[in-house]
Amino acid sequence: MKTLNIGMIGYAFMGKAHSNAWMKAGKFFDLAAKPVMKVVCGRTEKPLAAFGKKWGWEGIETDWRKVVKREDVDVIDICTPNSSHGRIAIAAAAAGKHIACEKPLGMNTADAKRMLAAVQAARVKNMVWFNYRRTPALSLAKQIIDEGRIGRVYHVRATYLQDWIMDPSFPLVWRLRKAIAGSGAHGDLNAHIIDMAYWLVGRIESVTGMTATFIKKRPIAPGAKAKGTVTVDDATLFLARFENGAVGTFESTRFAGGRKNANQIEINGSKGTIVFSFERMNELQFLDRTAPLHLQGFTNILVTEPVHPYIKAWWPGGHIVGYEHTFINQAADLVNGIAKNRKLSPDFADGVYNNQVLDAVLASAKTGAWVTVASRK
Amino acid sequence: MKTLNIGMIGYAFMGKAHSNAWMKAGKFFDLAAKPVMKVVCGRTEKPLAAFGKKWGWEGIETDWRKVVKREDVDVIDICTPNSSHGRIAIAAAAAGKHIACEKPLGMNTADAKRMLAAVQAARVKNMVWFNYRRTPALSLAKQIIDEGRIGRVYHVRATYLQDWIMDPSFPLVWRLRKAIAGSGAHGDLNAHIIDMAYWLVGRIESVTGMTATFIKKRPIAPGAKAKGTVTVDDATLFLARFENGAVGTFESTRFAGGRKNANQIEINGSKGTIVFSFERMNELQFLDRTAPLHLQGFTNILVTEPVHPYIKAWWPGGHIVGYEHTFINQAADLVNGIAKNRKLSPDFADGVYNNQVLDAVLASAKTGAWVTVASRK
Amino acid sequence: MKTLNIGMIGYAFMGKAHSNAWMKAGKFFDLAAKPVMKVVCGRTEKPLAAFGKKWGWEGIETDWRKVVKREDVDVIDICTPNSSHGRIAIAAAAAGKHIACEKPLGMNTADAKRMLAAVQAARVKNMVWFNYRRTPALSLAKQIIDEGRIGRVYHVRATYLQDWIMDPSFPLVWRLRKAIAGSGAHGDLNAHIIDMAYWLVGRIESVTGMTATFIKKRPIAPGAKAKGTVTVDDATLFLARFENGAVGTFESTRFAGGRKNANQIEINGSKGTIVFSFERMNELQFLDRTAPLHLQGFTNILVTEPVHPYIKAWWPGGHIVGYEHTFINQAADLVNGIAKNRKLSPDFADGVYNNQVLDAVLASAKTGAWVTVASRK
Amino acid sequence: MKTLNIGMIGYAFMGKAHSNAWMKAGKFFDLAAKPVMKVVCGRTEKPLAAFGKKWGWEGIETDWRKVVKREDVDVIDICTPNSSHGRIAIAAAAAGKHIACEKPLGMNTADAKRMLAAVQAARVKNMVWFNYRRTPALSLAKQIIDEGRIGRVYHVRATYLQDWIMDPSFPLVWRLRKAIAGSGAHGDLNAHIIDMAYWLVGRIESVTGMTATFIKKRPIAPGAKAKGTVTVDDATLFLARFENGAVGTFESTRFAGGRKNANQIEINGSKGTIVFSFERMNELQFLDRTAPLHLQGFTNILVTEPVHPYIKAWWPGGHIVGYEHTFINQAADLVNGIAKNRKLSPDFADGVYNNQVLDAVLASAKTGAWVTVASRK
Repeated sequence: MKTLNIGMIGYAFMGKAHSNAWMKAGKFFDLAAKPVMKVVCGRTEKPLAAFGKKWGWEGIETDWRKVVKREDVDVIDICTPNSSHGRIAIAAAAAGKHIACEKPLGMNTADAKRMLAAVQAARVKNMVWFNYRRTPALSLAKQIIDEGRIGRVYHVRATYLQDWIMDPSFPLVWRLRKAIAGSGAHGDLNAHIIDMAYWLVGRIESVTGMTATFIKKRPIAPGAKAKGTVTVDDATLFLARFENGAVGTFESTRFAGGRKNANQIEINGSKGTIVFSFERMNELQFLDRTAPLHLQGFTNILVTEPVHPYIKAWWPGGHIVGYEHTFINQAADLVNGIAKNRKLSPDFADGVYNNQVLDAVLASAKTGAWVTVASRK
Repeated sequence: MKTLNIGMIGYAFMGKAHSNAWMKAGKFFDLAAKPVMKVVCGRTEKPLAAFGKKWGWEGIETDWRKVVKREDVDVIDICTPNSSHGRIAIAAAAAGKHIACEKPLGMNTADAKRMLAAVQAARVKNMVWFNYRRTPALSLAKQIIDEGRIGRVYHVRATYLQDWIMDPSFPLVWRLRKAIAGSGAHGDLNAHIIDMAYWLVGRIESVTGMTATFIKKRPIAPGAKAKGTVTVDDATLFLARFENGAVGTFESTRFAGGRKNANQIEINGSKGTIVFSFERMNELQFLDRTAPLHLQGFTNILVTEPVHPYIKAWWPGGHIVGYEHTFINQAADLVNGIAKNRKLSPDFADGVYNNQVLDAVLASAKTGAWVTVASRK
Repeated sequence: MKTLNIGMIGYAFMGKAHSNAWMKAGKFFDLAAKPVMKVVCGRTEKPLAAFGKKWGWEGIETDWRKVVKREDVDVIDICTPNSSHGRIAIAAAAAGKHIACEKPLGMNTADAKRMLAAVQAARVKNMVWFNYRRTPALSLAKQIIDEGRIGRVYHVRATYLQDWIMDPSFPLVWRLRKAIAGSGAHGDLNAHIIDMAYWLVGRIESVTGMTATFIKKRPIAPGAKAKGTVTVDDATLFLARFENGAVGTFESTRFAGGRKNANQIEINGSKGTIVFSFERMNELQFLDRTAPLHLQGFTNILVTEPVHPYIKAWWPGGHIVGYEHTFINQAADLVNGIAKNRKLSPDFADGVYNNQVLDAVLASAKTGAWVTVASRK
Repeated sequence: MKTLNIGMIGYAFMGKAHSNAWMKAGKFFDLAAKPVMKVVCGRTEKPLAAFGKKWGWEGIETDWRKVVKREDVDVIDICTPNSSHGRIAIAAAAAGKHIACEKPLGMNTADAKRMLAAVQAARVKNMVWFNYRRTPALSLAKQIIDEGRIGRVYHVRATYLQDWIMDPSFPLVWRLRKAIAGSGAHGDLNAHIIDMAYWLVGRIESVTGMTATFIKKRPIAPGAKAKGTVTVDDATLFLARFENGAVGTFESTRFAGGRKNANQIEINGSKGTIVFSFERMNELQFLDRTAPLHLQGFTNILVTEPVHPYIKAWWPGGHIVGYEHTFINQAADLVNGIAKNRKLSPDFADGVYNNQVLDAVLASAKTGAWVTVASRK
């Protein structure tokens, strides 16, 4: 069987999720190529070596520039903090590698467009890890919509709520520093729900938004007395008009007590409604307005049956899957996509669009006015 | 418009629920006769008079024997403790009155059969207040079943869980004394779920059951030091075989912490499943096994729309109703039933059957063996 | 016992809800005065007479000017369409009557301020029927907040979703005509959730909003071929900054398929979170961030126990109440408030504030800019 | 690091679940030894070889007798159909191997006791794969109970509901043949909920039960015209008295439409209640009867935080896990238990007890009488 050699840059939270995906994809899916965990890259050799050994990476590198040039690497998998996505991807494209990049694609639209230009010029496969698309329940939502069961969409209601930095003594980690993260809840969480809405409903035409930073100073390290300034948003909210006439509310925050990973969306259409929350990721609610009136209601579909997207690869009906499965499903799609020379999805063009919406919201938050999402041209 | 004069015996919890029903039925339903709150009866004149005045009863009586003989009374409504149902109903039937009696009908089957014989001999209308049948969601369940949407029934799972006597200092009220109540959770709660299962699924052929009394001694009055013996069950559980081949579990208890009025039933059939809990009485869950496989799931029907049973009488769609509405709905059905000379439902024959199942369970609990529910002859 | 004579203007949906409230308040609550259903007023004598007889109103009037002047009337209860609230209230105040007015108070802020000035000048008691405040679960939410269990509020997320006009053949009723209704979902539904947020969290400082009308032409009457223009919003969405630093999203729509009366609010504070949906109005979810970490989660409180607001007046624990009970609870509070000479709540000043927020949102929707809610002076 | 060589017998559904567990345990947990996937065993070489290669087993064997004798194997992992558990385990014990065996341990009590005797004689570590104990939410339930937060237990309500054989055309697979499976839903599903109740509440003293087989003839193979007789139960229900005075209902079925893997338990104690359903395996409901009365309710704990059992090994808070994680958690516990010479849990003694309860229920189902669960001596 053909092999596909992976070189992964970064080995923190996302590195673990991706390693697990590369390790498992071939165990559960019948793949058109065999992913090989060739090399993992990080800056500090000792923990990197331990990580590489634990996860079965064949080798390690401490300089990402070497990785992108290695002849025995086919795919560069980028899971570094946002600020380095661009330079790694552009170099990887120049070296003719296929690229899978964590989200958000760029620090901003300009950054993302450069990345897009690079992969287009190099004609390499490219994908952004908007992993939630591969949640079986959301893939089912997409299928239901594509089957015409929602009709004309009127409303989108999307939130991504977390609570992990509510404690004022939580320190100033990289995700709270603008220079590295670009933004806070906005780029981290809104990026996901914008992609979901874009994928399920379509393009946003214009937005008006606001940001909030509730805790403005934090310890510079765990337990440190010294404090530094939080330079990103704790929460970003916006209203949206879609090109197809739908309207939407979007909100991401890290200050919603009790909401651990509440990536949620509701879509109301002329024929039906769809409701999803990642905290119950194995379930999808669907309301069919064409059903007999006395039987209408929200149907809670347990998305664990062989007839549902991705499930056949996993367990018998009724055996639920978890967060990590979204990555494994996406890794499997990537392998098959490259092996069969098909377009990957979502790709860098989708990632650019995502950055455009993110930027439009921030621009609006500054001026207080509605901002049109720039066209893709 | 024709009037229907009500004489109500008893004025405690159920007396309040029934007074409210007689007062409101004509306000919301277009009735074939006008119920008139003619006379309410109790043993202690002062609180009775206050009750009668508050609720607008035209008069009071302290001797129920007088009430059942009054010429200006058409219907005797019995809401006394269980031990007096029999003698009141028999006297009322002898006097040619229609009768509405609280559940359980008799203290036991023999008692109930005497009551049934009396109303049959007198040819008067008769009804038992199994009020939960008039929950819109359960009436919808009945409709769904009658539409053939459940198919052959395999399983019934019924529980009625409460927790109001879990505190050992809760006193020895009449409901905990066998001489007055007949039994504990069994007659009070199992009576309801047996009726629901009988109405929705059919007759039970045989049972094996058990009872438990967790707190055996209680203060004889609130705060009293002296203790008396609890002579009824705190909980009664049983297994059942239905005549149609279905099997079931039944359980009633007053010791399920946090369950306030969890009158619950699940019915699994070859074509569908129905799930109900009275704590969410405005909702019915229905699973349709004939729906497209990828869309199957439990549909949570908010039973508040004009197309649903009883709702047209109430509020616009989406405005939920409460516990008391079950009584008002049933009162409306009684008034129309008598005015139009139709059979009332459930009637004393249904009440006898209910006592037969209750008795069979208690007999089984004594011997530890399966007991066949006696035939109705 | 002192009596309080009610004169009610209007007898449609709200007239029914209010009649039921006046009839029942004294049956369940121990009131400091006895409400007397003295006179009901409408323009068309025949249906009015039928309504009055059914509900037990002592008399009827077809001219509201007469009602407000009647010496035997103490309280004017206004349940007419929004456009007539102002002139009736001002006349009633001039006549020295106490006033209970349906929401929104005025057609706009100016209208509402005139009403406020009138009742202040006349020194009469005044109240707005924001009935949802009297939902036991929301009263409990208020209590929990007042007990300091939420802490500093970061987020408000409020929606009021319905679906009753999604069918394009639904006709152009008065609620869809600006001249009579003032606005659509906005004044009808946002008015409620703005009041809830104001009551529970505090005053809104500024807003940015948008409106949408999805179906622009509708039959002028049921089944009519001729179509007229919908002149109100089908949906209105806005973002808000509260004076205390919290941020919020608000949305009301009549185009959310499957949402029948989804008056919903979530409040995230530094110490806890509260979640409520009117479709499960007997439940309140509370998350306590001060609980032991391993036990933290959303506690679903069944708000049906004697310890909960208003419940003692009703049924034993666990017996749920419905939509209509919010009105009965409020009527009871009004009667006691007037009888004991206490300020009613919410009053016309609260109603003015509500109109101010409504107006600010509409102003913002026109310009696309943030609008500061005018001060109450 | 010390290694622990695994020899696995069987490679169907459970073989896949176990392979995944052996592969992943060391990636997520810091183990005291390194599990090595040494050899997998099955009867048919070709699919076995494919399976072994896919999952990274070092070698294969087609004769389990060879595996149990291999010097390079430390642990025998048995995932064959029930009828062969006994002979494999006894041989493995004789060869001095540690043993992990799928449930139910034996075909019946006698079978299980022989296995227990063998491991006791050989003094090898032994464990039964009641994997649900390692669901984080159920481990949390155990912790809550051990913390004394439930108090004296009154009620257990356990069901394990599935629906995968409801279609009469579903064929006569091995799980429907008594000679191989021992029993149907009973041994497959009741085994699990009996273990859960035993672990969480304690030993059952006596039972009365019943079985039902709804579809008695089935195609002998998929699509076959020829039919064979189903020799196991479709459903088994029983009542139980626990040694500590609690009472319980238990039910397992494969005929509950819409219930895919509804392994559910509710436990009511004097101080609190616990509710769990595996279909929402990341959640545990807990009701604390000692909380302030107005705040009492079921707390839905999202069991995904670092403070919860097993979660630290996995993902950041709020990232849910799936069915397969129960096996990985248990594999990790096994590895550490053997490496640190600690008793494994549940062990074969627990497995014998499980078979005793299973047998008592079947004995009761035959006679219709209560049956005392035989003592462990």
